[in-house]
Amino acid sequence: MKVQRRSRRVAGFRAAGIHAGIKASARDLALIASDEPVATAAVFTRSTVVGAPVEISRERVAAGRSRGIVVNSGISNVAMGQRGLRDARTMTALTARELACGEEEVLVASTGVIGEPLPMGILRKGIPRVVEALSPDGFADAAEAIRTTDTHAKIASTRFRLDGVPVTILGIAKGSGMIEPNMATMLSFLVTDASIAPRSLQRMLGRVADATYNRLTVDGEGSTSDTVVLMASGAAGSGTLRAGRPETRRFETGLRAVCEDLVRQLARDGEGATKLMVVDVTGARSAAEADRAARRIANSMLVKTAVFGGDPNWGRIVQAFGAARVAWAPDRSRVRVGGVTVFSRGRSAGPAARKRAERALRAEEVAIEVDLGRGSGRARIFSCDLTYEYVRINAEYTT
Amino acid sequence: MKVQRRSRRVAGFRAAGIHAGIKASARDLALIASDEPVATAAVFTRSTVVGAPVEISRERVAAGRSRGIVVNSGISNVAMGQRGLRDARTMTALTARELACGEEEVLVASTGVIGEPLPMGILRKGIPRVVEALSPDGFADAAEAIRTTDTHAKIASTRFRLDGVPVTILGIAKGSGMIEPNMATMLSFLVTDASIAPRSLQRMLGRVADATYNRLTVDGEGSTSDTVVLMASGAAGSGTLRAGRPETRRFETGLRAVCEDLVRQLARDGEGATKLMVVDVTGARSAAEADRAARRIANSMLVKTAVFGGDPNWGRIVQAFGAARVAWAPDRSRVRVGGVTVFSRGRSAGPAARKRAERALRAEEVAIEVDLGRGSGRARIFSCDLTYEYVRINAEYTT
Repeated sequence: MKVQRRSRRVAGFRAAGIHAGIKASARDLALIASDEPVATAAVFTRSTVVGAPVEISRERVAAGRSRGIVVNSGISNVAMGQRGLRDARTMTALTARELACGEEEVLVASTGVIGEPLPMGILRKGIPRVVEALSPDGFADAAEAIRTTDTHAKIASTRFRLDGVPVTILGIAKGSGMIEPNMATMLSFLVTDASIAPRSLQRMLGRVADATYNRLTVDGEGSTSDTVVLMASGAAGSGTLRAGRPETRRFETGLRAVCEDLVRQLARDGEGATKLMVVDVTGARSAAEADRAARRIANSMLVKTAVFGGDPNWGRIVQAFGAARVAWAPDRSRVRVGGVTVFSRGRSAGPAARKRAERALRAEEVAIEVDLGRGSGRARIFSCDLTYEYVRINAEYTT
Repeated sequence: MKVQRRSRRVAGFRAAGIHAGIKASARDLALIASDEPVATAAVFTRSTVVGAPVEISRERVAAGRSRGIVVNSGISNVAMGQRGLRDARTMTALTARELACGEEEVLVASTGVIGEPLPMGILRKGIPRVVEALSPDGFADAAEAIRTTDTHAKIASTRFRLDGVPVTILGIAKGSGMIEPNMATMLSFLVTDASIAPRSLQRMLGRVADATYNRLTVDGEGSTSDTVVLMASGAAGSGTLRAGRPETRRFETGLRAVCEDLVRQLARDGEGATKLMVVDVTGARSAAEADRAARRIANSMLVKTAVFGGDPNWGRIVQAFGAARVAWAPDRSRVRVGGVTVFSRGRSAGPAARKRAERALRAEEVAIEVDLGRGSGRARIFSCDLTYEYVRINAEYTT
């Protein structure tokens, strides 16, 4: 499924992103709205510390339908107690009034510094303006308005036929690098004009998020505000997607392709990153064990600095999964870096292979493949390298 | 129990550290030997990837008695297959011949680059020389000879009375920072002239290691070669230590004090570190949950860079244990940085507290204390900050 990194119209939706005044000059308030209540699914951070907007949205999405989501960047509305909950509800109430819908039909997200109250005066003035700015071509502006430390806006879309009718899936996302000085938050909002019932949509988003967003790690941290929302208007006129239909599988493939593309953009733009790192572990005793090994490698400071330094250091890779107490069969094992086998059957592949792997490490995308030689469990994790710039951003950025 | 960072004589033991020629010029071969077979206990890495010396030593220490341990630095003898096992055995056989004991009575450890064979010619010449150099005052030289990227040798000792007789505990250790370019290995060797049966010694070392060495993290990695060995000669003439005796508890307190001091030295000297970070979590539902929270905080790249940058960033601390899915009661919670409360009852303690915490963060030792407000589980982890120098060492060091 071909994914393009550009905006498109998606029937039944409008979007906008404006400068409301929370940040000094950049866009900081976004809205995605549907023309009518539409099927809505969401997944949220599994952290035990969550922001007020997550509490509100998690509760509301259980109804399976919504009219949209209002998002501000600049201030995250985390750790603000009762006041935070009140402010998050007020954001949705202001939006609902302008959209002429119920407050309960509006979801909310905030991203930015924590421990500061939302500037409600600015939002009271900004929300009517962002509603007024809604446009079928507004997704690029919305992608801009949810940015924090991201170096560029992230957008991905695809179009294909279901039941002979063209349907579109479009997603925007913002950075898994740290936000302003405090928190690493990943936000992603997806819309489609395909038709699917809320319950099926939620199940599908759960599977796709597990295969994409939940496989992304920049620094091993999870945020208090991570939120992925998917809305389906059905306005394209294709048949309703149900479990078991080939069209449903095709749609899920498209959705996954859009989400995976966003995840690659997020990893590549991780704080201070110079390289996207894709870690594939195969040959584990189970998928869970493969996942554990891949995450440990993808989060290893030693592996991440080696990738930054262009060093195909299999010792650090082997050590990382070993420390995670993952079972392997040295005699049947293999480690490939940038497509080059650097370790095989428990031994180094020698200096010539090393030279080739060093050249491969100059690419912007680096594949690390480990075959544990024990079974058929496999897992993939997306990550990035660890650089001086990461330390600079996170040590010198003052709150 | 007062611990001093200096060498002492320990009745029944001699030690040496020489330059054998594995490294260009520094000491690289160490030996600790007892005059007779003595009670010996050890704990090893729990990694599923282990070096040949660990395999040999783990097997031999099961007998509970040994004559000593021979250690080289410079090359680690990891991932060398059958040849690695043969070379490790040969090191012990050469040592045993000089000490006139059985090969099985000698333990072995190696630390340094991996994937290269040990230079057995150099060791054949070096081992008789290190045996000849054995001296009751040789522990400082041995501490030098096991160093790799450590910026200084680590030694700690204490002396106190048991049954009215002075006994000594002495330990040396080497770095948990990465070794040469490849592996993070922690080695520590302890000797005492107290008298204790092998089985009791092993149990006690297990407890003490769990409270000290196993609470140390520099970069969240575990090595293929981590080894702690404790030998007890009984030559001081105090009574044999048995479970339940007050003298036994007193000895364990002394042993723990020596090990904790070594761990503080190791954390403070982690690669590129400028600060020792001591993370204490209290108020967890269980000790295991406190441990999980403390490790997550101690390994958090965001917390470690904040400590480096002198930023008392409670948001990153709260986020770290939240991401580990640790239960907390926000209304009863508290975060202290450098002894200053910066977060309390779910809210920031404000700018004045922040200023005081910033000043406290200038110290070389930084306490991070988290009260989760949920129960009585507690845990402590030792770590260090994450700096440009860590990235430099690990990205630019070529293999």
